[in-house]
Amino acid sequence: MKNQRTIFEEIGEKLRLERIAAEIRNMSMDNISKTKSGHPGGSLSVTDILTALYFGRIYNARKRGLENILNYDPCDPLWEGRDRVLMSKGHAAPALYATLAKAGFFDCQVLKIYRKIDSPLEGHPAMFQVLDDGKERGTRGVDFSTGSLGHGFSVAAGIALHAKIYGYDYDVYSILGDGELQEGMPWEACMTIANKGLTRLCAFVDYNHLQVDGSVDEINQLEPLEKKFKAFNWEVRTIDGHDFYEILDVLAYFKLKRATRTKPLMVIANTIKGKGVKEIEGDFKYHAVPLTPEQLQKASEAFVHRMEEIDRELPKYSQKALPTKEIVKTSPPPSPDNLKDVISRNPPGQYTAPTATRIGYGNCLTRLGEYRRLFVFNADLEGACGTSAFCKKYPERAAIPHDRRSINLGVQECNMMSMAAGMASCGKIPVVNTFGIFSTGRAWEMVRQDISYPCLNVKIIGSHTGIALGEYGVSHQATEDVGVMRCLPNIVVIEPSDAIQADRLFEKVLLYDGPVYYRIGRNPTPLIYVNNNDFGVEPVVDFEIGKGVLLREGEDWTIIASGPVLCEALKVAQMARESVQVIDMPTIEPVDEALIVKAAMKTKRIATVQDHYKNGGLNDAVLRAIAKHRLQVEFHSIALSGFGESGSPKDLYEKYGLSASKIMEQLGLTPK
Amino acid sequence: MKNQRTIFEEIGEKLRLERIAAEIRNMSMDNISKTKSGHPGGSLSVTDILTALYFGRIYNARKRGLENILNYDPCDPLWEGRDRVLMSKGHAAPALYATLAKAGFFDCQVLKIYRKIDSPLEGHPAMFQVLDDGKERGTRGVDFSTGSLGHGFSVAAGIALHAKIYGYDYDVYSILGDGELQEGMPWEACMTIANKGLTRLCAFVDYNHLQVDGSVDEINQLEPLEKKFKAFNWEVRTIDGHDFYEILDVLAYFKLKRATRTKPLMVIANTIKGKGVKEIEGDFKYHAVPLTPEQLQKASEAFVHRMEEIDRELPKYSQKALPTKEIVKTSPPPSPDNLKDVISRNPPGQYTAPTATRIGYGNCLTRLGEYRRLFVFNADLEGACGTSAFCKKYPERAAIPHDRRSINLGVQECNMMSMAAGMASCGKIPVVNTFGIFSTGRAWEMVRQDISYPCLNVKIIGSHTGIALGEYGVSHQATEDVGVMRCLPNIVVIEPSDAIQADRLFEKVLLYDGPVYYRIGRNPTPLIYVNNNDFGVEPVVDFEIGKGVLLREGEDWTIIASGPVLCEALKVAQMARESVQVIDMPTIEPVDEALIVKAAMKTKRIATVQDHYKNGGLNDAVLRAIAKHRLQVEFHSIALSGFGESGSPKDLYEKYGLSASKIMEQLGLTPK
Repeated sequence: MKNQRTIFEEIGEKLRLERIAAEIRNMSMDNISKTKSGHPGGSLSVTDILTALYFGRIYNARKRGLENILNYDPCDPLWEGRDRVLMSKGHAAPALYATLAKAGFFDCQVLKIYRKIDSPLEGHPAMFQVLDDGKERGTRGVDFSTGSLGHGFSVAAGIALHAKIYGYDYDVYSILGDGELQEGMPWEACMTIANKGLTRLCAFVDYNHLQVDGSVDEINQLEPLEKKFKAFNWEVRTIDGHDFYEILDVLAYFKLKRATRTKPLMVIANTIKGKGVKEIEGDFKYHAVPLTPEQLQKASEAFVHRMEEIDRELPKYSQKALPTKEIVKTSPPPSPDNLKDVISRNPPGQYTAPTATRIGYGNCLTRLGEYRRLFVFNADLEGACGTSAFCKKYPERAAIPHDRRSINLGVQECNMMSMAAGMASCGKIPVVNTFGIFSTGRAWEMVRQDISYPCLNVKIIGSHTGIALGEYGVSHQATEDVGVMRCLPNIVVIEPSDAIQADRLFEKVLLYDGPVYYRIGRNPTPLIYVNNNDFGVEPVVDFEIGKGVLLREGEDWTIIASGPVLCEALKVAQMARESVQVIDMPTIEPVDEALIVKAAMKTKRIATVQDHYKNGGLNDAVLRAIAKHRLQVEFHSIALSGFGESGSPKDLYEKYGLSASKIMEQLGLTPK
Repeated sequence: MKNQRTIFEEIGEKLRLERIAAEIRNMSMDNISKTKSGHPGGSLSVTDILTALYFGRIYNARKRGLENILNYDPCDPLWEGRDRVLMSKGHAAPALYATLAKAGFFDCQVLKIYRKIDSPLEGHPAMFQVLDDGKERGTRGVDFSTGSLGHGFSVAAGIALHAKIYGYDYDVYSILGDGELQEGMPWEACMTIANKGLTRLCAFVDYNHLQVDGSVDEINQLEPLEKKFKAFNWEVRTIDGHDFYEILDVLAYFKLKRATRTKPLMVIANTIKGKGVKEIEGDFKYHAVPLTPEQLQKASEAFVHRMEEIDRELPKYSQKALPTKEIVKTSPPPSPDNLKDVISRNPPGQYTAPTATRIGYGNCLTRLGEYRRLFVFNADLEGACGTSAFCKKYPERAAIPHDRRSINLGVQECNMMSMAAGMASCGKIPVVNTFGIFSTGRAWEMVRQDISYPCLNVKIIGSHTGIALGEYGVSHQATEDVGVMRCLPNIVVIEPSDAIQADRLFEKVLLYDGPVYYRIGRNPTPLIYVNNNDFGVEPVVDFEIGKGVLLREGEDWTIIASGPVLCEALKVAQMARESVQVIDMPTIEPVDEALIVKAAMKTKRIATVQDHYKNGGLNDAVLRAIAKHRLQVEFHSIALSGFGESGSPKDLYEKYGLSASKIMEQLGLTPK
């Protein structure tokens, strides 16, 4: 029986691909030089890998026919069954764009406006999306936004996990740069992909041995690289990244062995930075320096010459090409369930005693657990974040694959966040759980690049927030989380004020299509939204994102607060001789302006109380609303002026001015 | 000649250490249970390692005497020549605290107030510092704050690098948890420590195989761990972490081979979580659950019993202990140079044409380079951040060690930030260079935990900021950097407005003792502080941190801006029929309130213009000042309302409302 290579030699497959690669190189160099901006070196080194992926075929001896390596449909770039390509080294965008244009995702003319304003071709790849209003965003054919090194591998892991859990048949290819492997994040992904058996993932390292400032081997070497990947439990193949037969062989091996594979496949592709443009080959200075017009002309002539050469040679080969298998566009049937129905079938339970908001949140997660699009990520704080019941019901090792709707990655917040983004890009609703300091801090840049920018439907949980956390101390008390999340576009920031609200409001969070930061607390706090509560206020039954609740009317003062510290504000209203009205503002971003305006006009004095740092938090949101509407009010902000410390929550609230009595003092209120 | 073990067997060294360990275990369990909060499991597993480090000795055959393993002086906890211990798994604080108390750093009575308010014993270790006012902060004997997993290893790397560059003779010991190794950051440190030859570092993995949620091997295994470290070019020894002879042997090997060592030493210490308290041994549930009073009593009795047993046994051993070498407290002589002199000797050069602020900053760095305390960190963007000249003058591989005052770690922003923090903890002034999106975003949590919290003297550079970056696109345009840095306590946020200011103001940044975020731009921008500038304003010659500059007087409006976008504000003042005054506000945090108040009272209309996102930036700083002083002014904020895109800076400023003409429109100003 004939093997790959003999078939290919007969039909001149290598030449066919070399011609496409020359064309892609020619186009990408042209764009970079004309735009006077972009990364030639790394685009040229990765071109042959991209060419093989998008245009290569393998010979399926069993089926006696050729198959495309990648399953994609340029006319249907969002087909959910497509194979994904994660260009983790996003600065090679010019090569990717030229490849996608050549593959028919868009017209080659579009390449001319690369990096220009209003262009679909961003400096670094921006994932293709069709917004609700039908507008297109990003670049057709780009599966995910990249550019910040180290993320793409984790995103690929999330997309591969999605296939495994929800029964999709696609493969995921991730292309990494070598300098990128100096980052820690890819090693998190490396560990997880192998340990969690995400064997539908094939990764390429474009190993050109050069980075921005020089030689990878001199700056911070990766060697022995093969040993590293093997020690992370990967199957490793090292190839010449410019020899199509070697690339096709390894891809054939990957595709034909899919069913039986036990390890993910890492391909170390030895490449040459600047490959194809003699003058700049192996010169790190051309990492981000365009070719001069002269260099471009010379290079272009060489490419064109090579194409013409091939055009003369190709006909000599038997062109009675074997039939190439058509793509069969399959996808699993959409999950039948409807979230609204699930919610109406599973109302919240009763709350009687003080309960932590993390528990209220966890209860909602569990009661709505049957909703199939829901997937829960944990990073070794499963119990701490209130997700144990859900994870027990839908465990990682459940018998039925689609019941395996939770995963615990261990202590890997960054990888977790980007994996969740990858899963969200497939239309699911990942809920990411860890302490607030880690979800908003450790993983801030992952939230920014992979969730906030593409506005993906990830629910980001931050538990153990505020100095209300108490004894754990500063390293674990998230007191800047509200601020740093408000600093990001597209993210809704919510802090429920009691367990009941945490439970009910999370229904709305799941119904809302977009990223949300949900701030919850560790310790039990009093119930507010219950009959006969300690604060003499009427329990509301329904909550909306973006809407505050006027819990108590008053004439002289309005105190606005979010989270359990609201209880202190309510106590103030009970204790003060002055008439104080209290607003619960669970949604901090976007804040309920209408309610603020109404309150400001009524009481003329507004104070915000927050268990987070003074800069960037609730106080700034309220102050902005006041300024926007030109309201003349006396404004007071009661907030943390620095870091906290270890101690009991009660002692801390007293020392840091968040207790009812200390709030009274600061506002100059008089006890009854 | 006798070897370690025979000597130790003669004098009953093992028993001596076992007794100390029992005492430490007894104290730490007592603290945790009495405080009802803390981490027993991991404290017990690491106790023997800590005991060996702080109380162990090795036999130096050459010197025919015993030497302490750690060089420390409990009466002088900040002695700069001391060996450092980085408890990267900070949750084992109770074991560390009991060890330090036993070692004489503070009275054992202090342990009783562990995790209580106003206690020096934080829930997670807080480094010991003596503030300018003489007040003490943190815990005597704690070399650096830890608690957030993965940081301590990088901090240790920074401290080891400090010894190597500045000629100190101390060793650095880093103790890692196993779950911690699921994080990517330790692998960045792992790669760097070996590749940069930081062989004075010895790391221990407290390999108890359990993490918060269960078994490390089941959640996200580390195996084959020895192979991993070897593939990262470490020398690896695997020992029983509860056998004192094995611990002493490996430490003796480390100390006696220091001179000839070519690789750092990784000790994989197999331990048992909960070791010493039979009931909880190997039970992950006791990660953070205190012993019950009953459990505590039982455990305590066992420990006391063991101590008494040893007290009976010990005398049987020959106690004519060999002399233990006294610590000789040496430190290299303080560097003679004085920064003020260096500055006066090296005035800034001339600027004539539009120049990027990154270049102005780089010029300052280079002209003051001779100042020995200055050390420059890069992460593969050495040239991009304007540091090439400095790094050429003080290269990593310079002939004289103390000239090696720059290092390029490759693409490792997180590791870089924490290494810099480690070096700052030794009294040097590290300057950390990368793009703003990475220094403030990717490494946000490192800045927070390792720099902002201990308020260390690290200068954080953010280059390529704002949409002014242009073509690179969203992934690289730092537009939230000002906000997320303002969200942190103790950090001064500065954005120079032209290259001249960037050059001169950085002198002040270096003179200032504390963390600073210095925001600079990639592209050339007009000179403002030069004679005959395009804006018809008088060039100021001196700049101060915290002080704005009233560049142009006006009656109707005040526009406040920072950074190169200030040029657009100055153009507005030239173009508008209304009388517009313009304030340059390079220090965004803390903002110049006095100047704002003065301007507000004069013009009654204030607008801020910023090339960063609307939440958390300059506008909020100014608005806060206005509210604080109860000023009745009309306030306008011109800022980014979302992410930018790729394009030329000019096109982007026009599209996103930051060009002079668009500013005029938004403020309703009329052209002359």
